Amino acid sequence: MTGETLHVHFLGTAGAMPSTARNPPCIMIRRGSDTLLFDCGEGAQQQMMRAKTGFVVDAIFITHWHADHFLGIFGLLQTLSFMGRVEPLEIFGPRGCSDFIVSLNQIGPLRPRFPIEGRDLSAGDRVEFGGYHVEALPAQHNTPCLGYLLREDARPGRFDRERAIELGVPPGPLFGRLQRGECVRIARGDAWIEIRPQDVLGPERPGRAIVYSGDTRPFFTHYGPAALEPDLLIHDATFDDGEIERAREAFHSTAGEAGQAAAYLQAKMLTLVHISSRYTTTGTHTRDARKYFPGDVRTPQDLTMLEIHFRDR
Amino acid sequence: MTGETLHVHFLGTAGAMPSTARNPPCIMIRRGSDTLLFDCGEGAQQQMMRAKTGFVVDAIFITHWHADHFLGIFGLLQTLSFMGRVEPLEIFGPRGCSDFIVSLNQIGPLRPRFPIEGRDLSAGDRVEFGGYHVEALPAQHNTPCLGYLLREDARPGRFDRERAIELGVPPGPLFGRLQRGECVRIARGDAWIEIRPQDVLGPERPGRAIVYSGDTRPFFTHYGPAALEPDLLIHDATFDDGEIERAREAFHSTAGEAGQAAAYLQAKMLTLVHISSRYTTTGTHTRDARKYFPGDVRTPQDLTMLEIHFRDR
Repeated sequence: MTGETLHVHFLGTAGAMPSTARNPPCIMIRRGSDTLLFDCGEGAQQQMMRAKTGFVVDAIFITHWHADHFLGIFGLLQTLSFMGRVEPLEIFGPRGCSDFIVSLNQIGPLRPRFPIEGRDLSAGDRVEFGGYHVEALPAQHNTPCLGYLLREDARPGRFDRERAIELGVPPGPLFGRLQRGECVRIARGDAWIEIRPQDVLGPERPGRAIVYSGDTRPFFTHYGPAALEPDLLIHDATFDDGEIERAREAFHSTAGEAGQAAAYLQAKMLTLVHISSRYTTTGTHTRDARKYFPGDVRTPQDLTMLEIHFRDR
Repeated sequence: MTGETLHVHFLGTAGAMPSTARNPPCIMIRRGSDTLLFDCGEGAQQQMMRAKTGFVVDAIFITHWHADHFLGIFGLLQTLSFMGRVEPLEIFGPRGCSDFIVSLNQIGPLRPRFPIEGRDLSAGDRVEFGGYHVEALPAQHNTPCLGYLLREDARPGRFDRERAIELGVPPGPLFGRLQRGECVRIARGDAWIEIRPQDVLGPERPGRAIVYSGDTRPFFTHYGPAALEPDLLIHDATFDDGEIERAREAFHSTAGEAGQAAAYLQAKMLTLVHISSRYTTTGTHTRDARKYFPGDVRTPQDLTMLEIHFRDR
């Protein structure tokens, strides 16, 4: 049974060059007491201070090895060292990740005081956490790149309280055991009979899901069914639709293409990120995405925090 | 004759850990059209955007290879690459600099699109620029560290206009030639006589000078006479005097010790930098420095800009 909070902190929403308003890419997802970073651009540690998120990072997922997506790792490692971290930190990324971490550990001035482990991922690979997992998604950029899907485990179905009473289960602790998926035994006349969870629970309900595209041309048709119906789609929208040619050349997406992705995946909400520094306002981005996606479209400023609720709460 | 402007931008004034108000160490000195960076902490490029200094960096001087003093190099190199820089960039620093630059050039994801050259300096080494030089100063930190002295070439003495007229030089272009150090010939009766610059110029006047201590225990008595009478002393003041023991352990200075340095060197102005994130206000720093130094003491916020004038203007 999963009742954990799920928060997304947009710590950096800039494209390849930061601006005075937008830091390089960094998205923090906090689920319960777990904290994952997706990309870690320069200045991530200060953005964490500004967002008051604390520094307990459980894992870092890098979409690709362009400098704007990982330069913040170094300063974060130093600050974690100052703070006395001893737990190893795992960094995941596409091909080249483990080599990069090896070089990182070799550069004297950067050497952190706790173990850093790098693991190369390919599309389809899953990293398991307690109650959820992160799956690498394919992407199409001018260097090996991954998107990521964070998906919670399915939740038990809705508890049918009236049905339970009808079957003779007395309101109280036995309700909780059934809700947690355990069988319970109750007396009926002379006999003990067993009530199974499926007798009183509705169909399994999906956990919450967040998809992060990474830097990519639209590639959502390659994601597979696991990425369908995300509660939040965080998509590359470096350009608005007026710059579609530039987007093609640079292997990025336009806001309209991000809208198409949200519509195709049946997302609940779409957030546009990796906004090129050429744009000082994002009105055209939002407009272009809404041409294709009727749901909630946002272009978050840095330090925006969103809480992701269960759809059926 | 030097009439160049001289500006100091305090782009980062934090200690080893940044705060939401102070970025890691980075001081930009702009003389005329030259731009030098002294240390280049994480986020330096965004601070340059915020200070509207532009990105034309002529050289970078690193005081030591602790991560808070150089992590901004990577992002700056990437942005300079995006902006089409092709000119080589020289990075100077204490022992380990050239090795570090070699590693930097080897890490694929960081590879800049223009040549980066690293040069190890030792205390006393000078790097010449047009009209000024930078000299490495000794420092005492827990890793090899340098301070830096930027000193302008001496300027010609003050032009004695009355004396020139008395010698028969007509006001006009000949005055300028004498001021620039050229001899001029004038007619007196039947003869041509030569007027030399030294006939009409006062004693040579020193150029402006700025001393940056780097991270260090007080070490100013080891600087030598070239560092005396700086117009500006930028000194490590990680701690206030209440934390003198901590300063000794960490090989940093207190604000009072920075004041002693300013008094000893006969600085015109003292700025306190590398302020530990434990301090949210700097009143005690300023007070402690003033115990020893009667001149102008400041604890600049990030993005403060100071113009350094000639003392005798």
